[in-house]
Amino acid sequence: GLGAVSKMLVRRRAPSLLRSLSGVQRRLISSGKGSEYLTRVKAFMNEHVYPAEDEVMRHQNSASRWTVPKVIEDLKVKAKSEGLWNLWVPADLDPGHKLGVGLSNEEYAALAEEMGAVPFASEVFNCGAPDTGNMEVLLKYGSGEQKEKYLTPLLDGTIRSCFAMTEPAVASSDATNIEASLVREGDSYIVNGHKWWTSGALDPRCKICIVMGKTDTTAAKHKQQSMLLVPMPSEGLEVVRPLTVFGYDDAPHGHAEVRFQNVTVPSSNMILGEGRGFEIAQGRLGPGRIHHCMRLIGMCERALSLHCRRAMSRTAFGGRLSDKGVVRKDIAESRIAIDQARLLVMKAARSIDEGGAKKARREIAIIKAVVPLMAQKVIDSAMQVHGAAGFSQDTPLAYLWSQARWLRMADGPDEVHYETVAKMELKGHEGDAR
Amino acid sequence: GLGAVSKMLVRRRAPSLLRSLSGVQRRLISSGKGSEYLTRVKAFMNEHVYPAEDEVMRHQNSASRWTVPKVIEDLKVKAKSEGLWNLWVPADLDPGHKLGVGLSNEEYAALAEEMGAVPFASEVFNCGAPDTGNMEVLLKYGSGEQKEKYLTPLLDGTIRSCFAMTEPAVASSDATNIEASLVREGDSYIVNGHKWWTSGALDPRCKICIVMGKTDTTAAKHKQQSMLLVPMPSEGLEVVRPLTVFGYDDAPHGHAEVRFQNVTVPSSNMILGEGRGFEIAQGRLGPGRIHHCMRLIGMCERALSLHCRRAMSRTAFGGRLSDKGVVRKDIAESRIAIDQARLLVMKAARSIDEGGAKKARREIAIIKAVVPLMAQKVIDSAMQVHGAAGFSQDTPLAYLWSQARWLRMADGPDEVHYETVAKMELKGHEGDAR
Amino acid sequence: GLGAVSKMLVRRRAPSLLRSLSGVQRRLISSGKGSEYLTRVKAFMNEHVYPAEDEVMRHQNSASRWTVPKVIEDLKVKAKSEGLWNLWVPADLDPGHKLGVGLSNEEYAALAEEMGAVPFASEVFNCGAPDTGNMEVLLKYGSGEQKEKYLTPLLDGTIRSCFAMTEPAVASSDATNIEASLVREGDSYIVNGHKWWTSGALDPRCKICIVMGKTDTTAAKHKQQSMLLVPMPSEGLEVVRPLTVFGYDDAPHGHAEVRFQNVTVPSSNMILGEGRGFEIAQGRLGPGRIHHCMRLIGMCERALSLHCRRAMSRTAFGGRLSDKGVVRKDIAESRIAIDQARLLVMKAARSIDEGGAKKARREIAIIKAVVPLMAQKVIDSAMQVHGAAGFSQDTPLAYLWSQARWLRMADGPDEVHYETVAKMELKGHEGDAR
Amino acid sequence: GLGAVSKMLVRRRAPSLLRSLSGVQRRLISSGKGSEYLTRVKAFMNEHVYPAEDEVMRHQNSASRWTVPKVIEDLKVKAKSEGLWNLWVPADLDPGHKLGVGLSNEEYAALAEEMGAVPFASEVFNCGAPDTGNMEVLLKYGSGEQKEKYLTPLLDGTIRSCFAMTEPAVASSDATNIEASLVREGDSYIVNGHKWWTSGALDPRCKICIVMGKTDTTAAKHKQQSMLLVPMPSEGLEVVRPLTVFGYDDAPHGHAEVRFQNVTVPSSNMILGEGRGFEIAQGRLGPGRIHHCMRLIGMCERALSLHCRRAMSRTAFGGRLSDKGVVRKDIAESRIAIDQARLLVMKAARSIDEGGAKKARREIAIIKAVVPLMAQKVIDSAMQVHGAAGFSQDTPLAYLWSQARWLRMADGPDEVHYETVAKMELKGHEGDAR
Ligand SMILES: Cc1cc2nc3c(=O)[nH]c(=O)nc-3n(C[C@H](O)[C@H](O)[C@H](O)COP(=O)(O)OP(=O)(O)OC[C@H]3O[C@@H](n4cnc5c(N)ncnc54)[C@H](O)[C@@H]3O)c2cc1C
Ligand SMILES: Cc1cc2nc3c(=O)[nH]c(=O)nc-3n(C[C@H](O)[C@H](O)[C@H](O)COP(=O)(O)OP(=O)(O)OC[C@H]3O[C@@H](n4cnc5c(N)ncnc54)[C@H](O)[C@@H]3O)c2cc1C
Ligand SMILES: Cc1cc2nc3c(=O)[nH]c(=O)nc-3n(C[C@H](O)[C@H](O)[C@H](O)COP(=O)(O)OP(=O)(O)OC[C@H]3O[C@@H](n4cnc5c(N)ncnc54)[C@H](O)[C@@H]3O)c2cc1C
Ligand SMILES: Cc1cc2nc3c(=O)[nH]c(=O)nc-3n(C[C@H](O)[C@H](O)[C@H](O)COP(=O)(O)OP(=O)(O)OC[C@H]3O[C@@H](n4cnc5c(N)ncnc54)[C@H](O)[C@@H]3O)c2cc1C
Repeated sequence: GLGAVSKMLVRRRAPSLLRSLSGVQRRLISSGKGSEYLTRVKAFMNEHVYPAEDEVMRHQNSASRWTVPKVIEDLKVKAKSEGLWNLWVPADLDPGHKLGVGLSNEEYAALAEEMGAVPFASEVFNCGAPDTGNMEVLLKYGSGEQKEKYLTPLLDGTIRSCFAMTEPAVASSDATNIEASLVREGDSYIVNGHKWWTSGALDPRCKICIVMGKTDTTAAKHKQQSMLLVPMPSEGLEVVRPLTVFGYDDAPHGHAEVRFQNVTVPSSNMILGEGRGFEIAQGRLGPGRIHHCMRLIGMCERALSLHCRRAMSRTAFGGRLSDKGVVRKDIAESRIAIDQARLLVMKAARSIDEGGAKKARREIAIIKAVVPLMAQKVIDSAMQVHGAAGFSQDTPLAYLWSQARWLRMADGPDEVHYETVAKMELKGHEGDAR
Repeated sequence: GLGAVSKMLVRRRAPSLLRSLSGVQRRLISSGKGSEYLTRVKAFMNEHVYPAEDEVMRHQNSASRWTVPKVIEDLKVKAKSEGLWNLWVPADLDPGHKLGVGLSNEEYAALAEEMGAVPFASEVFNCGAPDTGNMEVLLKYGSGEQKEKYLTPLLDGTIRSCFAMTEPAVASSDATNIEASLVREGDSYIVNGHKWWTSGALDPRCKICIVMGKTDTTAAKHKQQSMLLVPMPSEGLEVVRPLTVFGYDDAPHGHAEVRFQNVTVPSSNMILGEGRGFEIAQGRLGPGRIHHCMRLIGMCERALSLHCRRAMSRTAFGGRLSDKGVVRKDIAESRIAIDQARLLVMKAARSIDEGGAKKARREIAIIKAVVPLMAQKVIDSAMQVHGAAGFSQDTPLAYLWSQARWLRMADGPDEVHYETVAKMELKGHEGDAR
Repeated sequence: GLGAVSKMLVRRRAPSLLRSLSGVQRRLISSGKGSEYLTRVKAFMNEHVYPAEDEVMRHQNSASRWTVPKVIEDLKVKAKSEGLWNLWVPADLDPGHKLGVGLSNEEYAALAEEMGAVPFASEVFNCGAPDTGNMEVLLKYGSGEQKEKYLTPLLDGTIRSCFAMTEPAVASSDATNIEASLVREGDSYIVNGHKWWTSGALDPRCKICIVMGKTDTTAAKHKQQSMLLVPMPSEGLEVVRPLTVFGYDDAPHGHAEVRFQNVTVPSSNMILGEGRGFEIAQGRLGPGRIHHCMRLIGMCERALSLHCRRAMSRTAFGGRLSDKGVVRKDIAESRIAIDQARLLVMKAARSIDEGGAKKARREIAIIKAVVPLMAQKVIDSAMQVHGAAGFSQDTPLAYLWSQARWLRMADGPDEVHYETVAKMELKGHEGDAR
Repeated sequence: GLGAVSKMLVRRRAPSLLRSLSGVQRRLISSGKGSEYLTRVKAFMNEHVYPAEDEVMRHQNSASRWTVPKVIEDLKVKAKSEGLWNLWVPADLDPGHKLGVGLSNEEYAALAEEMGAVPFASEVFNCGAPDTGNMEVLLKYGSGEQKEKYLTPLLDGTIRSCFAMTEPAVASSDATNIEASLVREGDSYIVNGHKWWTSGALDPRCKICIVMGKTDTTAAKHKQQSMLLVPMPSEGLEVVRPLTVFGYDDAPHGHAEVRFQNVTVPSSNMILGEGRGFEIAQGRLGPGRIHHCMRLIGMCERALSLHCRRAMSRTAFGGRLSDKGVVRKDIAESRIAIDQARLLVMKAARSIDEGGAKKARREIAIIKAVVPLMAQKVIDSAMQVHGAAGFSQDTPLAYLWSQARWLRMADGPDEVHYETVAKMELKGHEGDAR
């Protein structure tokens, strides 16, 4: 009984099938290598990822939804064998290109856009969050032992990881509020704390958790927090329940509430050293925000493509929807918003490439404030033209919208990014004001 | 393991517990009767409905979620016994106040606001959609037989009903597009068609479906459609699957895809007569839109209440959230938006009371264009201040938001209401333009 | 050489000519008296005020622009003789209806809307700002002597007045910043200070200025300021120059920069007593804000009327502008925005009538935050449909827009009103937050 | 008597004084030449143009306002002597760099931003509208004779020009509506028509007008219009009156209403040939829109700079304005909006450089829809923080705002640009929709 509806699902195939490299994209990619990988990722998406979408969705609506869908593991094998693996590893962290393929952040950004259009695609290329961020931390700050134990299998895609900072009891956008305690006792750390929104903790493959917590409540404000590696499962570590996001639970990945009660880990699991939590957090966020934002732009392109096709295929009140002025204005506004946002993100990626994440701080704050909000609007307007179908499981739109919405919160709420931008702007005028 | 979180649930109690009748409300309610019922509904909400919220939510997350939660049936009994039953029946359709309690649309609107704050509350008072709309149709246009068979048990709350107009194959906001066929054969009608978004069809208590379809494809455009009563279950009527709205499926009510294959019903099930479908649809929509809009305003008040409390209880970046200028501006904007919208809806309700739904057409279109969009914004900003919690199952906000969003579509998308308003405005200036 | 253009001017006649009392208006006006005066004001506007618009505009573009246009003085005589005079005086300040005609604030609000459509109309009925506010102050707080000397001729319309609070050196939206000094010496006060935006000070008829300044810099913050009557001209009082608002200077009324250098006035010119400045300011603002807001709504109705007519009379890209979806949406949004706002203002007016300006504080803040912003948008979109003509002197739109814009500042900027609303909203939830 | 106010004027000096070439700008300028000229233009602005601003303003408020201010003519001489002259002439139209200095559109765009901050600055470098557009037309399409007679003195800066397309009687955003008639009689064309918004026609130096009108009302729609050179003054050509834009008349440049009654010019004054009007118009608009948009961005940077300084220098309600959350958010939003828009414009400029204006059509439509609206918002929010001062002659903000507003209309209203973008977007999906 899926007639008309399943046709709709079929229609949900790759927008990029139809497009070869656009002028814009060509221009955005400075090196031949970036453009080569973009072509290959596009091809892989069209041949393997889009066609798998229905199967993944079926799995997500089945009883075994909290297990890993086989199709994704198969796709990982294929992607790896084609050398489309760990594409996110930036050339500068990977001198001989032994881990990844040696792309710049700017080059990878264009790939992230392609992957963004399908929710599980990043994982297929071992480019999914939060693993990429966690791998980056280990790559940059991990000890030899830590790398061997956790980075290697993560790069191999045999395990997954999670990152536990946010706590229900405090406003966690201000990381100085984090209260979990990491207490040194002999050769161990004892972890106590209550976390939530630990994404990925419910995934059966998740074997390691980076926990943020206080090692010294008497130190200077930005020296109190540290990051500790906690293997999963561990005694005293309880994954309490999945949280939902607009009714979606993102199984089997999941966003977990997690309790730590006297969880004990070897002291060698401390990353970089006590009190370095903030420093690590800072470093972790730059490229990850580029990835998130470019994936959102990929979602927007998909949404706009669906928007146009639907508008051209439906007739109401005497004409095609695509001939109605308000629908056309929405389409134009979406195109404009996407193009603007992409330029901003590419510029921020280039800034990281040129001067590092710290120097690109303002630009990173800007894209984080701009892109999720933009995506929310673009996808919302694509939903609207779909009528009630737009809210349902028959298009990817409602789910993509939920992603845009929560990305206005994760990695820091809009308000905090506006603050960063304002602060830097005002600083530029100090001395001028009288 | 629900510690901090369940505390949050507790916090989710009645905002109106704290408020007695406000000046505004007092003024809005012209008669003593309206004000009396408002007081009683408030009390019932606080004593019985809010406290039941957790149990209903638990049921909705349990394996038996597609069955009716006992607690709701119990509450119905209690509400009925207290005379808080069928409050929606407008005095003018119910001369001796035999069915309802004889309130005007304006008076009932204030009650709908109270009920709106809890998703299942309207049902408790036998005031839930789509039953109210369907009962109204039967009350106004039903034959004696139709009333006896379907209206009586609906008014009793022993059965429920659904309304099947929308079809996946066509843009259904333009009802002239509806393609289902209702063919007269002897004393029967044969129904064929493919519907979806038939809300309530999945409810085990749902016994009757009003189907819109074409009896005469050669008639004038607005005379082709008719409305037919189809009992449920019926042979050939297949409830295919539930649709989701964002990640919610509204079990056990549900929004169903439904197929009609040669479903045969007695010809006496035709409502009002062939070709009268539009006329009935028109009449059906007025008060229902008031109800929807006032419920949304109730949701907004609840959201704003949660907004304020959360802002006052969290500290970040050196101060309470409620002391931050942008948070305060959001709160002010929400208060302003709600107050404006309520005045509009009350005015529309009064217009219906004074001149009937047809004369109030412009005002009804206006509230339908204003209120859901406003509610979407107000609830979104309440979510934002809650951080990630706002998107989860630990506050009612994400779910309420989804309601606001889809109410921008159901009963006609925003665009169609803007069209109505523009048309009438321009008409007022014909002759002036040169 | 004014051909096509002057036709446009002709078209600029009364929108209300075409409308008799609408249902809304009838409902808004509770008493027969309000409705009677509304009918009379409408008639006077149509017969006398709209037709005078071109002459006033010619005067304003002539060399004698800083003198009073005779046509306005003539209209004043006519309005007075018809009893359409001092309509603003609220019944409760004028027991026997000796000064005005005994309307409530709500009733007068409907008249203010009518007057608002033509910039100089309020003056014709002796209802113009800032005279009304100043008269109200004198009526409420003036001594017998003060009333005789200043209130009487103001009520007669033989002199005009101004109000000097704002200063260039400080953020004057926070009245505690005001720095002008009022020093008592024997039977006199010596005034020193630098003011600007003293509206009306350039008008040759302006004979009295209410100056706000500090009498005691050591008193509690809200007891430092006082209000003093300073006759004009006075020695040491220099009207420095007119300020422009966008490119308009509002001649002959004007917004003046004014310097006070040792200006000496009798001590009996102190209003109410030293340190009472805030108290007076508070009282002054309630009804005045109703007036401003209703005038803006009148401007909006006129703008929307012009919007529709223009849209119906122009053809571009294959169709009438009024048939284009985006134009229609703009029209619908304007209609909706105006209707919402009017309900809010009428409600605020009613609140003042019922409980006084202090109790209506939240509602007054709300309308001040809502209405000018709304008007700015409504008029802007009317301008847009006029093409370049909309910005020019050939329609009233650009000028009306400038009024809406500055009314987002005068009587306090938006931000301050949002603060007031937020504060009161949060206060309502104190105790709830944990 | 200008005390505090004139200090404000002083504060209105070059924002770029304080900034050397920013990273962004360095990156935006690909060639060394672009960057060199940027440095030189910045220096010239700071040394000569900003300091002349008060004098120009005084002239504009004086009785001789409709004459050319000497200070501008002096600055032109200086700029020319320093080789900062005709910088707009794109390298590709000027092979040996004989006319300009051989910059690309992208390189010039960065200069246009600098010039934009001061309304008369473009003229100083002989880069002002509409002369640049008119010179471009002559450069591309003019005959030898036409070039000699009109292009040479325009490039010399000894005469100025105007462009007369828009007509009061028709919606001129749709150029097919233009009704002026150009009738060939022997060796002459006879011009009849009624134009308005002919910018620059009031300037005493204006010697040549390009008139658009119909040569053949029976030709295909886009072949009816032609462009003709009409010397000024000419018999039968009457400059009727200046039009105002929000009260500003832009003296001595001015926006004129112009009548053509049997104006006769030699047939050799026809540009390119009969029926080529559209073709020329198309070509004329690309670079000109880049210029307009980059000047707007310069205005925005100036506005944001003033915004920050004012916020840091004023105190209200217990703190500096720059410490208030809502003010900070406005600042962040302005910074973000400007950065986004600049990237878009620079990309469009690069597209013109790479593939010509026709291929860049979508990008040009996008910037025209984005930038003026953005500028309107950015400048409006700068005005707001200035309090009433922001609307007055004491800051450049109100005037700059008026420019942003009318640039949402000139060169085509927003709506038309949205249409262009939508059309192209939908075209990209033809064939996909079912
Ligand atoms: C789907 C999802 C996945 C996530 N995954 C992870 C994860 O894997 N690991 C992890 O540790 N966390 C994760 N998070 C949590 C996320 O990082 C936090 O939600 C975020 O940091 C905000 O913290 P909070 O929820 O405690 O909100 P709060 O800090 O309580 O902030 C709430 C609100 O306060 C207001 N506010 C805050 N600061 C200011 C200010 N300066 N000015 C004005 N207003 C302000 C804003 O409105 C903000 O939205 C995830 C979140 C989501 C939704
Ligand atoms: C949760 C939920 C419950 C529902 N319950 C019921 C139910 O019980 N029974 C039932 O029959 N239906 C129900 N509906 C369906 C609802 O009534 C329809 O979705 C609605 O009428 C729109 O029809 P459509 O979905 O076919 O959208 P379409 O008609 O395809 O419209 C899609 C879009 O087209 C555009 N559009 C349409 N007209 C114009 C125009 N004139 N100008 C510009 N743009 C235009 C708009 O963007 C609109 O959103 C429900 C819907 C939802 C979401
Ligand atoms: C046309 C016109 C006529 C006028 N007529 C008169 C008159 O007759 N008599 C008279 O005395 N005055 C008059 N005024 C002045 C008017 O009352 C003041 O402009 C107004 O009170 C604001 O004061 P300000 O201009 O000093 O702005 P400021 O006080 O400097 O405020 C500037 C800005 O600061 C910001 N701000 C202020 N407080 C806050 C806050 N709490 N949170 C966040 N942001 C904040 C806002 O953005 C505000 O716009 C007139 C003004 C105009 C434009
Ligand atoms: C300051 C200034 C300087 C100018 N200088 C010059 C000059 O030097 N020479 C010259 O020839 N002209 C000039 N113009 C005129 C300008 O080019 C025109 O104003 C512009 O082209 C619009 O034409 P119009 O004013 O006739 O508006 P109209 O064509 O009447 O358009 C009015 C409105 O109609 C609506 N509209 C139009 N098309 C559509 C559509 N497809 N869909 C939906 N809505 C639509 C829009 O709301 C639009 O704003 C100037 C204008 C200004 C303000």
